[in-house]
Amino acid sequence: MPLPPPPLDPLAPTDLALAEWTRALRPSTIQAMMGHMARPGVISFALGLPAPELFPVDDYLAAAERVLRSDTGALQYRAPHAPLKEQVAALMRQRGVECRPEQVFLTTGAQQGLALLARLFLEPGGAVLCDRLVYMGFQQVVESYSPLILPVDSDLETGMDVDQVEAHLEHGPRPAFIYCITDGHNPLGVSVSLEKRVRLAELARRHRVPLIEDDAYGLLHYGQPLPPIRSLEDRWVFYVGSFSKVLAPGFRAGWLVVPEELVSVLGCAKDGADIDTSTFSQRLVSSYLESGGFEAHLGRVRAAYREKRDAMLDALARHFPAGTRWSVPRHGALLWAELPAGMDAAALLPDVLEREGVAYVPGNAFSFDRRAGTRAMRLNFSFPSLAQIEEGMDRLGRVFREAATRRAA
Amino acid sequence: MPLPPPPLDPLAPTDLALAEWTRALRPSTIQAMMGHMARPGVISFALGLPAPELFPVDDYLAAAERVLRSDTGALQYRAPHAPLKEQVAALMRQRGVECRPEQVFLTTGAQQGLALLARLFLEPGGAVLCDRLVYMGFQQVVESYSPLILPVDSDLETGMDVDQVEAHLEHGPRPAFIYCITDGHNPLGVSVSLEKRVRLAELARRHRVPLIEDDAYGLLHYGQPLPPIRSLEDRWVFYVGSFSKVLAPGFRAGWLVVPEELVSVLGCAKDGADIDTSTFSQRLVSSYLESGGFEAHLGRVRAAYREKRDAMLDALARHFPAGTRWSVPRHGALLWAELPAGMDAAALLPDVLEREGVAYVPGNAFSFDRRAGTRAMRLNFSFPSLAQIEEGMDRLGRVFREAATRRAA
Repeated sequence: MPLPPPPLDPLAPTDLALAEWTRALRPSTIQAMMGHMARPGVISFALGLPAPELFPVDDYLAAAERVLRSDTGALQYRAPHAPLKEQVAALMRQRGVECRPEQVFLTTGAQQGLALLARLFLEPGGAVLCDRLVYMGFQQVVESYSPLILPVDSDLETGMDVDQVEAHLEHGPRPAFIYCITDGHNPLGVSVSLEKRVRLAELARRHRVPLIEDDAYGLLHYGQPLPPIRSLEDRWVFYVGSFSKVLAPGFRAGWLVVPEELVSVLGCAKDGADIDTSTFSQRLVSSYLESGGFEAHLGRVRAAYREKRDAMLDALARHFPAGTRWSVPRHGALLWAELPAGMDAAALLPDVLEREGVAYVPGNAFSFDRRAGTRAMRLNFSFPSLAQIEEGMDRLGRVFREAATRRAA
Repeated sequence: MPLPPPPLDPLAPTDLALAEWTRALRPSTIQAMMGHMARPGVISFALGLPAPELFPVDDYLAAAERVLRSDTGALQYRAPHAPLKEQVAALMRQRGVECRPEQVFLTTGAQQGLALLARLFLEPGGAVLCDRLVYMGFQQVVESYSPLILPVDSDLETGMDVDQVEAHLEHGPRPAFIYCITDGHNPLGVSVSLEKRVRLAELARRHRVPLIEDDAYGLLHYGQPLPPIRSLEDRWVFYVGSFSKVLAPGFRAGWLVVPEELVSVLGCAKDGADIDTSTFSQRLVSSYLESGGFEAHLGRVRAAYREKRDAMLDALARHFPAGTRWSVPRHGALLWAELPAGMDAAALLPDVLEREGVAYVPGNAFSFDRRAGTRAMRLNFSFPSLAQIEEGMDRLGRVFREAATRRAA
């Protein structure tokens, strides 16, 4: 099943009058890949899922029991859980960000944080400055505004091309915001260099343009972490954080760090979106954090992912065709591999899925026009086991080497 | 603290350039009331919260344990939980609605269902047909589209004035949809009569205008329930359901019943909003339903709420000033009480809160212009205990009778 073109028509014929934005809809690659992954035996490098073997299930159950036994408020509508805001502020300090709990806004995952910030800053038809290859969930947020995309290229070692950012800000239409995934970029796997962080903070400040810093992977570092851009600029940088990658996506718990004056506006937008972030989830996460096992858990996750990353990098070097380029992630769960010139990872995917039972996301799924990134693919190393990484990369390498040989012939 | 005028400025001075819609923002009465309710000793008739004493906490914990022990998939991103869709379809059959699981779309509470449907049908500046006095969360959904509101009056015994609906459809601008809360209307407490349901279904069909049927309270009936409008029209009626009132708001689990062709479009919109409804919540609710205790639980909730409703109705008759009118809810958790002419429930609230420690939502909070409904208040009878109902209504009655006497003097 090719991806793209669409595996299913997002607009099946209907006589219902739908809003204009739905005409530009393309099917969700994420949802399609979830379907593929459900097939038995498929080795998935496709989605950015945490390692299932590392979930501290007993600790989560103990936390669930504590919160439900102590107070049925955990089952009600409630104001955002104040202790969790305090815990987030403490976590932010670990990341080098100074903020007060009053600046923390709890969200239903980082995704809702992005959606709410876009709603706050972006008018229909407004401009957005971001990487040419960018997180699909971000595309889904902004596409319903029919935006003008101001794309910048990105380097696999240092991230966003800041000269291009500056050129857009100086000569282009004014963007509603800059979107930047600082660490463990989705899909590129790169972390933005310190020099570029400093320049991005300075550009946001000088041009008075909000910079949305998506730091979903920031806590998963495999070496000395760099400070988020928010630590360099506290007025124009809007920080998006998440417990999905470090605890579990299933809790849908994330947060924003914003100027305090925006919290009530965000509250109105969130009321309309889903009223509350699950009170049960908020308190479960808070109780888990309070119980004190988080640092040790994070240490285990970092060590395991680092080992998986190294296994994937090693397999890439051994199995993929000569001329393949890839990122060496210092954060996160994703790696970008670009096949030699003339190859097309999107075109090869159906074959890989059918014959080899291996899933990845083709690189062009991450470009707004589905044209950039066709040679490349996003590979996830957190979810598969070490054995699956070895086996899956071996199978991928075989298909890709054959394709490279055919092309050369 | 008066409500309204705003207890806090939703737009504190900011040098950030926010989207145009935020200028019309008013503070969230819901969030403000949550603040009031947190004060110790306050008797709250304000929010539509379930009775805390009826939560089957042990059953929820057992379900949490079953889902977490059986499969770590409950902690991941996942496609919507198919067994829960089947269970919702079965529940819908109990409500007299025939639908297939493929027509069920799981949402992060009914609120997200409303937000997604609005996004599907409503263009900025589009028209919306609804009650003049209507659920605040619905206002928060549509207000960011700067809509043209086509209001209709409602009768406290039979609901929406369908003649006015018909007049709008025949002579007014075409609405993107009709919004109707069929049972246990929020805030009016009324259930739409069968005759009006039939006419609304017929009008939606004839005018080819979607009707969004919000049935959050439909399962909480205190007598013979009527069939939802969706059971009378399966093409033009879009059904919104919720587990919040019958299980717990804290799970944020709701659903839509829609034509199957819309499921993938809704999926794209939901991806952008929050990716998934909490997989943990979906599976916990599904496992709880499967365990078989739901019908008995629902029976207990209906019996308890009916008793609380009767206590509140009785107290209304005894304590409130002569000339007060109220609805007699056959569904749900909310009751509407309108003070005699010349009285203002919004103006009296600060005094009631400060001096008597009793909270309600003033009626004008439910009108788009905050002008209609000033004489009235919404009273919740599900959350307070019987003793609190007696005590709180006594206190309210004292203040209102005094005010009525002052006005007469």
